Amino acid sequence: MTMASAPGKIILFGEHAVVSGTAALGGAIDLRARAIVQSLPGRILIETDDLSLRGFSLDLSTGEIRSASAAYATRYVSAVLKELGARDVRVMIESDIPPAAGLGSSASIVVATVAALNGHLGLELSQKEIAALSYRIEKEVQKGRGSPMDTALATYGGYQRIADDNQRLDLPPLEMVVGYTRLPHDTFSLVEKVQLLKERYPDLVGPIFQAIGAISERAAPLIREQRLKDLGELMDINHGLLEALGVGSRELSELVYAARNTGGALGAKLTGAGGGGCMIALPGMAGKDALLVALRQARGMAFAAMMGCEGVRLEVA
Amino acid sequence: MTMASAPGKIILFGEHAVVSGTAALGGAIDLRARAIVQSLPGRILIETDDLSLRGFSLDLSTGEIRSASAAYATRYVSAVLKELGARDVRVMIESDIPPAAGLGSSASIVVATVAALNGHLGLELSQKEIAALSYRIEKEVQKGRGSPMDTALATYGGYQRIADDNQRLDLPPLEMVVGYTRLPHDTFSLVEKVQLLKERYPDLVGPIFQAIGAISERAAPLIREQRLKDLGELMDINHGLLEALGVGSRELSELVYAARNTGGALGAKLTGAGGGGCMIALPGMAGKDALLVALRQARGMAFAAMMGCEGVRLEVA
Repeated sequence: MTMASAPGKIILFGEHAVVSGTAALGGAIDLRARAIVQSLPGRILIETDDLSLRGFSLDLSTGEIRSASAAYATRYVSAVLKELGARDVRVMIESDIPPAAGLGSSASIVVATVAALNGHLGLELSQKEIAALSYRIEKEVQKGRGSPMDTALATYGGYQRIADDNQRLDLPPLEMVVGYTRLPHDTFSLVEKVQLLKERYPDLVGPIFQAIGAISERAAPLIREQRLKDLGELMDINHGLLEALGVGSRELSELVYAARNTGGALGAKLTGAGGGGCMIALPGMAGKDALLVALRQARGMAFAAMMGCEGVRLEVA
Repeated sequence: MTMASAPGKIILFGEHAVVSGTAALGGAIDLRARAIVQSLPGRILIETDDLSLRGFSLDLSTGEIRSASAAYATRYVSAVLKELGARDVRVMIESDIPPAAGLGSSASIVVATVAALNGHLGLELSQKEIAALSYRIEKEVQKGRGSPMDTALATYGGYQRIADDNQRLDLPPLEMVVGYTRLPHDTFSLVEKVQLLKERYPDLVGPIFQAIGAISERAAPLIREQRLKDLGELMDINHGLLEALGVGSRELSELVYAARNTGGALGAKLTGAGGGGCMIALPGMAGKDALLVALRQARGMAFAAMMGCEGVRLEVA
């Protein structure tokens, strides 16, 4: 039995503007997806209890339990198995990461599955090869629309600066609180909506993207020097700019203000595409517990997560 | 007896950025302050029933009421009386405009009082002289910090473009809904806060101001051509930019999202300095009544108001 785990991710600064080439900053968070691989002669079995389809099994070799939604929920794992030509295995997936919440759930599952099969099959893929292969698989499943950031963060952990190319940043970990609206979001339609807004109002959206890019560039030194008050201030500014781009929502705004006003956050912003999904908040003097309480009182799902955590790793099963 | 009334105002676009010289757009709204002047030989009496008077003393032997806050509440009217050397008069003030809400309450009171005394004393001041005198009086009471926009809109009505100088715009009236958080705001400390933010982050606040200025410039043609959907979209963008500047609040955000999501507004934004005070929303297909209901359900005080209404006028008492 081989078990591997890979972290989820958050975008700290720069979402949407990054599509037009300004810098963004993302970090791995220690909510993890785990893939457990065992020999199962004569079969190819995928099991999961938490990929939005609770408690089922799908036998790819026999076609046992046919379900469009089961195939959909397991499509990333299926794609990995197919890509690696794996047979005679049982793959179990467990994940701490809410799916469709902008936290990189699918990339973590792909990377963890690739890494577990890498160990199980003795493929000796390097970390770089795991990242590249995982990106290719995720992109294929998402019909060409994936970004390399999610799989890179799931593989390497830490932080990534994203602009024309991706660059790993060596920065200390940072405790974050994630609030989830429990509303899914549709990344690609929101990205498209913002890009349309840019076409209609270049004189407005151009400067907004410019300001967002400037925030991303300012962030790394603040994390390095642990200037958290300033970092929180930039989160607040970036949130307003995302509201200006039309990707805020009442639910996100309620969580953001609950974090700032009740939870003592140093700053708070939506993370990812917006609309629904998640927001993040930087704990203040009152600590993460006060923030978790405030977000839950505001009807959010909330969890503390260390940003900049370790990437994919083999686990003792 | 002479009665004059003057309208309140809202800032439609451009608050805060205007301090750094980009354009803003304001409109008079038909919530009005009224001043009624009567002869009262041997006395100078100011009466009001709604200027937030709190804490007074009543001498039962003489019937005399003393109150520091009474002097404060009536300081604008006192200043007008002093400026015009008026004696032997009773001035009654009534106002539809919540004070300290960013709706130009004090300017309306000054302009209405100047106009009523102008009629009562036969001074034959022109509209231009009323505007200039009122501005001077308001500025003096506010220790030099007033803007000429409030008194100009209270005098002339309609719309004003504010940049280096003020300019009247000839645009059709527009129905707006105003939501009041019931929280006062401190204009001058918020203006100072934003200007400090600009000093600390010129690379962020510069582009934000630029985008806000561009919105103001785009607005007038949209009002002229009644392109209300586009106008609403600009309101939403401007609101986000004000959030980015740190002058939003949970209460304002709740009213803004209630207007957009429940009230069917075409757009909504805070108006004025922010923090507390008011937001405005542009009614959509569901009309102003749906908006008023939505804002009241969200714990706001709400009223419909025609923007671009008539300025100061004598009334039949």
